Amino acid sequence: MSPHDDHPALNRLPPWVKAKLSSKAVETIVKVHDWVETECIPAEPIMKAQLVENRWKTPQLMKDLRKKAKSNGLFNLFLPKHFGDLSPGLTNLEYSCCAEIMGRCYWAAQTMNCHAPETGNIELLAKYCNEEQKKKWLQPLLDGDGCSAYSMTEPDRATSDATNIACRITREGDTLIINGRKLYGNALWNEDLAFYILMACSDPDNPNQWKRHSTVIVPANSPGLTMKRNLTIMGYDHAPEGHGEYVYDNVRIPAANIILGEGRAFEIAQGRLGPGRIHHCMRLIGQTERAYELALIRCIDQRKKPRGKLIGQFDSNIERIASMRLRLDSMRLVVLNAADVMDTLGNKAGRYAIAQSKILVPEMAANIIDECMQLYGGQGLTQHTALPEMWTYARFVRIADGPDAVHRHQVGRDQLKTAEGFRNRHEAYQRRYQELCEQWGVPYETF
Amino acid sequence: MSPHDDHPALNRLPPWVKAKLSSKAVETIVKVHDWVETECIPAEPIMKAQLVENRWKTPQLMKDLRKKAKSNGLFNLFLPKHFGDLSPGLTNLEYSCCAEIMGRCYWAAQTMNCHAPETGNIELLAKYCNEEQKKKWLQPLLDGDGCSAYSMTEPDRATSDATNIACRITREGDTLIINGRKLYGNALWNEDLAFYILMACSDPDNPNQWKRHSTVIVPANSPGLTMKRNLTIMGYDHAPEGHGEYVYDNVRIPAANIILGEGRAFEIAQGRLGPGRIHHCMRLIGQTERAYELALIRCIDQRKKPRGKLIGQFDSNIERIASMRLRLDSMRLVVLNAADVMDTLGNKAGRYAIAQSKILVPEMAANIIDECMQLYGGQGLTQHTALPEMWTYARFVRIADGPDAVHRHQVGRDQLKTAEGFRNRHEAYQRRYQELCEQWGVPYETF
Amino acid sequence: MSPHDDHPALNRLPPWVKAKLSSKAVETIVKVHDWVETECIPAEPIMKAQLVENRWKTPQLMKDLRKKAKSNGLFNLFLPKHFGDLSPGLTNLEYSCCAEIMGRCYWAAQTMNCHAPETGNIELLAKYCNEEQKKKWLQPLLDGDGCSAYSMTEPDRATSDATNIACRITREGDTLIINGRKLYGNALWNEDLAFYILMACSDPDNPNQWKRHSTVIVPANSPGLTMKRNLTIMGYDHAPEGHGEYVYDNVRIPAANIILGEGRAFEIAQGRLGPGRIHHCMRLIGQTERAYELALIRCIDQRKKPRGKLIGQFDSNIERIASMRLRLDSMRLVVLNAADVMDTLGNKAGRYAIAQSKILVPEMAANIIDECMQLYGGQGLTQHTALPEMWTYARFVRIADGPDAVHRHQVGRDQLKTAEGFRNRHEAYQRRYQELCEQWGVPYETF
Amino acid sequence: MSPHDDHPALNRLPPWVKAKLSSKAVETIVKVHDWVETECIPAEPIMKAQLVENRWKTPQLMKDLRKKAKSNGLFNLFLPKHFGDLSPGLTNLEYSCCAEIMGRCYWAAQTMNCHAPETGNIELLAKYCNEEQKKKWLQPLLDGDGCSAYSMTEPDRATSDATNIACRITREGDTLIINGRKLYGNALWNEDLAFYILMACSDPDNPNQWKRHSTVIVPANSPGLTMKRNLTIMGYDHAPEGHGEYVYDNVRIPAANIILGEGRAFEIAQGRLGPGRIHHCMRLIGQTERAYELALIRCIDQRKKPRGKLIGQFDSNIERIASMRLRLDSMRLVVLNAADVMDTLGNKAGRYAIAQSKILVPEMAANIIDECMQLYGGQGLTQHTALPEMWTYARFVRIADGPDAVHRHQVGRDQLKTAEGFRNRHEAYQRRYQELCEQWGVPYETF
Repeated sequence: MSPHDDHPALNRLPPWVKAKLSSKAVETIVKVHDWVETECIPAEPIMKAQLVENRWKTPQLMKDLRKKAKSNGLFNLFLPKHFGDLSPGLTNLEYSCCAEIMGRCYWAAQTMNCHAPETGNIELLAKYCNEEQKKKWLQPLLDGDGCSAYSMTEPDRATSDATNIACRITREGDTLIINGRKLYGNALWNEDLAFYILMACSDPDNPNQWKRHSTVIVPANSPGLTMKRNLTIMGYDHAPEGHGEYVYDNVRIPAANIILGEGRAFEIAQGRLGPGRIHHCMRLIGQTERAYELALIRCIDQRKKPRGKLIGQFDSNIERIASMRLRLDSMRLVVLNAADVMDTLGNKAGRYAIAQSKILVPEMAANIIDECMQLYGGQGLTQHTALPEMWTYARFVRIADGPDAVHRHQVGRDQLKTAEGFRNRHEAYQRRYQELCEQWGVPYETF
Repeated sequence: MSPHDDHPALNRLPPWVKAKLSSKAVETIVKVHDWVETECIPAEPIMKAQLVENRWKTPQLMKDLRKKAKSNGLFNLFLPKHFGDLSPGLTNLEYSCCAEIMGRCYWAAQTMNCHAPETGNIELLAKYCNEEQKKKWLQPLLDGDGCSAYSMTEPDRATSDATNIACRITREGDTLIINGRKLYGNALWNEDLAFYILMACSDPDNPNQWKRHSTVIVPANSPGLTMKRNLTIMGYDHAPEGHGEYVYDNVRIPAANIILGEGRAFEIAQGRLGPGRIHHCMRLIGQTERAYELALIRCIDQRKKPRGKLIGQFDSNIERIASMRLRLDSMRLVVLNAADVMDTLGNKAGRYAIAQSKILVPEMAANIIDECMQLYGGQGLTQHTALPEMWTYARFVRIADGPDAVHRHQVGRDQLKTAEGFRNRHEAYQRRYQELCEQWGVPYETF
Repeated sequence: MSPHDDHPALNRLPPWVKAKLSSKAVETIVKVHDWVETECIPAEPIMKAQLVENRWKTPQLMKDLRKKAKSNGLFNLFLPKHFGDLSPGLTNLEYSCCAEIMGRCYWAAQTMNCHAPETGNIELLAKYCNEEQKKKWLQPLLDGDGCSAYSMTEPDRATSDATNIACRITREGDTLIINGRKLYGNALWNEDLAFYILMACSDPDNPNQWKRHSTVIVPANSPGLTMKRNLTIMGYDHAPEGHGEYVYDNVRIPAANIILGEGRAFEIAQGRLGPGRIHHCMRLIGQTERAYELALIRCIDQRKKPRGKLIGQFDSNIERIASMRLRLDSMRLVVLNAADVMDTLGNKAGRYAIAQSKILVPEMAANIIDECMQLYGGQGLTQHTALPEMWTYARFVRIADGPDAVHRHQVGRDQLKTAEGFRNRHEAYQRRYQELCEQWGVPYETF
Repeated sequence: MSPHDDHPALNRLPPWVKAKLSSKAVETIVKVHDWVETECIPAEPIMKAQLVENRWKTPQLMKDLRKKAKSNGLFNLFLPKHFGDLSPGLTNLEYSCCAEIMGRCYWAAQTMNCHAPETGNIELLAKYCNEEQKKKWLQPLLDGDGCSAYSMTEPDRATSDATNIACRITREGDTLIINGRKLYGNALWNEDLAFYILMACSDPDNPNQWKRHSTVIVPANSPGLTMKRNLTIMGYDHAPEGHGEYVYDNVRIPAANIILGEGRAFEIAQGRLGPGRIHHCMRLIGQTERAYELALIRCIDQRKKPRGKLIGQFDSNIERIASMRLRLDSMRLVVLNAADVMDTLGNKAGRYAIAQSKILVPEMAANIIDECMQLYGGQGLTQHTALPEMWTYARFVRIADGPDAVHRHQVGRDQLKTAEGFRNRHEAYQRRYQELCEQWGVPYETF
């Protein structure tokens, strides 16, 4: 990999990661880098301008870029090997390196069909759908035709504990009837949206609480399905994808749209959240790098000289820059390690490492970007830079897929299960200490 | 003041503050409380709805409420005694208690003509204008007719150090010609905006850098003055006031619009930032209280039961609630003390106490509101609550009037001036120690 | 109070506090200041030297200073008015100002008989003992003859919840027999130690868990009472007072030594912890001021010039100094407010304000002192300054009288009781909003 | 390496590290684990007891363990391959895994001759001494006979910037005469101490400030060299090694004791601080793991039940445990990465990664241990656990080899050198954006 060693696409990667990258992967990473640098970041204001014209329609720029990325072999990079030809065959670790770069531009992943919730949905459909379903719903997504949404959260329910999901599926012969309310899931207002993957309650009286829910596919144009409003995130509408607030009012879908089988939503949910959960984190690393670069550039901006010194000549700011750099690089290690754990030991064994990323990275990213805004001065909070949108994305990821407290609880509970082992070890120390006391003629002391 | 002791408008006030409130002030505080509770908070969605219709026009609701507040004697409460009849005669401390309550609703202060930048501008005009200027520019503001803007910050200049202000005033006889760019200052798009108070450079070659700038009044309809765009703050447009980005292109105004005299902008700037700087902090206390209340309400929301417990039954959340409460109450003490210092010792002697509020309160407020959002769960970042707007306001205040680092530098430099006194004291300890060594027959030891 | 306005003993006090000080109190504060500056701080190395000679004996210096302080009218300053002639008649607020100054030297309070646990014990004995007990046990303490200890914590019990106290009192006629283990309580090895005030379980089967415990006086020389070891705190032995680890092995005391009556320990415990709990906080403010001064002095130390600049010329350090100053002054406001609340509304109503001090001040103090050590460089952790001892004291107070988490839980639980009131208020907003919707012809929207 | 996969010596290692361990290394790691678990941790109180008897003499237990470790092949594990037979041939990464385990017991590294300052000194002597010097000074250290000290810091100098070192070497023929004061460096009172490696100023007038200093070997028994006192660290004397405070009063040594040559101290200093600087960090990881285990054990201690629940049943504590775990594992990744960078790219290229460890790990370790103490309750600060000593060691490492601020400055300055590159990149974005504007017919907008 030596020729690319100092390439900006690779120079922040730790040696152990570089050593694991195939030459094919290195090529892809460099291609992604060039794509993002040339086609995405400079085009950000163009994307904005096109969205002003028509807020809820996928901009022509995005459509063009998706076509071009596809023809350049930059499509569906996240797809694991078992997808065959469709898959570029990158490991999670290799894909992480790509995803970090994608994260530098808010919508770059979408140009490569590597964006949320598409990636999670595609994996879910590929893993759990039957062939007919795959043909109908999965293939278009893989081809980049239309998009999908994932619908789980509900208003006024603690759905971070998914057993609380109340949206109701009832059956009439071969038809399922859906009633309920949902939050999040891409905006119905966008005409490219093809369907929702919905988790809802189909058997509320099942004594096994893990078998009460089903996952179904709901076409976007189903009668009775309405979007009440777009949910803003910290005031941002995130158009044209958005985050809708929905009412399902007697929405009817064929029973053929059930994925895997009735009552098997939790099986599916388990499988969904592996790599998908840290794709966000990977991208946050790249995004935070870009915020950091904006701060660095501000530090040497000749026009900004409070008290006669460049911002980067104040050693308080020199320390701030260092502190950001150090924390950001630590978080990259955490994310890359999680990817490597999944590659090496599998997604299940990777649960802890995934949670580690999920909990630590978004908070760190939001904090660093916040410091960049502050260092940037009065303009730091305005649309003069992308910093406010970056912060908002990081803040959002901190609560998406469940607030960090929920994940910390899970980790903490798992850890407490190890306590007894340590107590036993501690007691062994005590016994050995007693032996040694005799040996050395020292009185045995307890506390 | 006993009858009102447990009144919700007063029950968070420390005893020493209650003891200092005149009965007139207590009455006013209670009136402000009732006003905000009845006319403002419940009307927040109405205000939003009216702004959707016409984004840059003052909503009819605001106009009506201002009229009503004025006729109820709830106008210009911030005005100090020397304004005579116009002033309700509240001390800074008493007004703080009102301002906290106003802060519960983002725009409540405006209904009472107590909002930024009006309050600072009114004080400035009252203090430094001649009679003619007062009649023309100040009186309408006091009457609630039209509004004003303060224009100081510039793009790509470190104007937190105001000597860097570069916007240029040149003189041709009795006419001043202005050229330059400015950031912030209310939106020119709002037809109620009457004029800008502009700080600009009139004498760049003056050897005394504190005499190079002048403060002038620029009518909003001046030819050559254009607003390039509205500045969003973390994505919020803050319409219909907004924060504009301006170009002054050969804007001509009469020399009679100079305030106090040419080259005296720094004298004026000094006088402007006293109480105005902490009105924001006072309001942030009230706003954060409301965020806290939303979090508390969520804690007992019967519909939210992750893992079968109310949010408020998790003792991690019980500790979080306590921690928010304790920090918020500490910050109230800081703000009230600053107000009291200004009342007792004057604005100048209050510089440190004002800086203490300015530095500590916005950061604490933003942190607490952020925790409230997180505790609120998935809906906490959406428009389902006012939390995102509250956070944004707190974040904005942290950088408005200069980033906190600038103020910390000032405080730190002042503190370092006291170091020598402490060294002398320390040396006196050493001399006395030497005496005591002799007295006690102990060897004198140095480190 | 004008003549003393700029006196270093008073110049950090906020105006509202100064205004409440009687002229007698001002005189006392200044006297305390002079005493600490002249007799205590410079004598610190002398005290250390005398302790090297005999670690567990009260040094002659301390004995002399106590005699002198007593004859100067600087004894028992903490005693409230109802102690008559013994009391100097200071309010809690006034005493706080004295206590802060005492805090500048670790043992200064002891010279004035105002140290822990004496102050809490004296109040307890005065409040709950009968006349005979007072004569025997209280009077000598007031006179400064001998000292006392408070004994509550137990090893391997969660005695921060005092219902868990297991040390056992059984009765045989007029004799009480005590068996159990205790932690903390001054060292038995000090010959001046006269007695322990012990909280223990006398009626384990009482259905009312608040009536199972009694408080008794145990003479230090009781047979069967042994001190197993001195407890070090972060390695410090805190000689000659120390913190013992005790065994009560059939210790026999007369039943006349029961305070207030059998089973009434919780009544007593309630009464004990009011002002005593924040005396520590008051002193921590003074101690942290002194750490801050050492940092300031280091900042201008001509001998310390990394990279050619004084430590105080690095603006990272300038910001650090400011940040310490601002937090420390905030904490003083918290402590002084707690004292004022007790004066104004009583100790019971002051529970929250006391907890606010107890939770916030020690943690802040430890953090600031830690930063001072770091700023001080390599010598900051050594005996070259008192900083390590200061940090240790602050750290200790954070866990003494219960870890901060316990107090936060209590505050949080109290706060959650207010949640319903806020929900009602919120519902009233909603009803009013509905009215306004009709009035303005705006659709009523819910989330 | 599969047989050892779940071995407690290895189970916290990330897969990429495990994959890099040679089978020889795995064997060694497991041996170190068994050694520390069986011979060190249980013997801690024995070591303490022996030190009570004779504070400044190496305890017999240590002597025995060193002999035994040596004969077991557990000696000098840190030595890199080029030491030939003496070296066990471990990479830095492999040694890190050993060092973490050593860190579980404060003095375990010493039993294996892998302790500071020995490791740094041995590397220095091996790298820069001539053969004769090696034979005389290095060989005994390698053999475990006697010990050495490194002497650099000075009182009242900012020697974190080593150009400030003032201790003076003057030459008289073949004799060097040394005068000055030094801090730190092991205690002269320990009879095993053989010599000091001293950095001092030999040519103060050299125009090149990097050539003014020399490094020399000073035998411990040199006349004129006295130890004024032992330096305590947070009150701990760290006997029998300690940290001395020295006076060099006309100390005479042969010129043959100059290492590398006069004026070459900075060359030597550069080479010294590579791996040595992170051995501390490696050990801190292990030490913090042990603190964490003590906290976990406390969490399930049946005797501790505040409010009727185990400490580990409070979900505030469950979250605390998770938070500690997550941060600690992140820091392990940082340390292991630094070791791997050194292995892969060399010590020089590893400067940043070393600094990252040096800055982040000690602060994190001290914070986590502090939380463990707090969670442990009243006993957490006493000698009942090793937590206070652990905290003190972590706190010490945060300032040893220079306070973290100094290292952050260095990192920050290096980072600022990259700013221009990012500005160029940013300008390229702007140019490309302009192209795209034309292409899409969108107006080019600047901020």
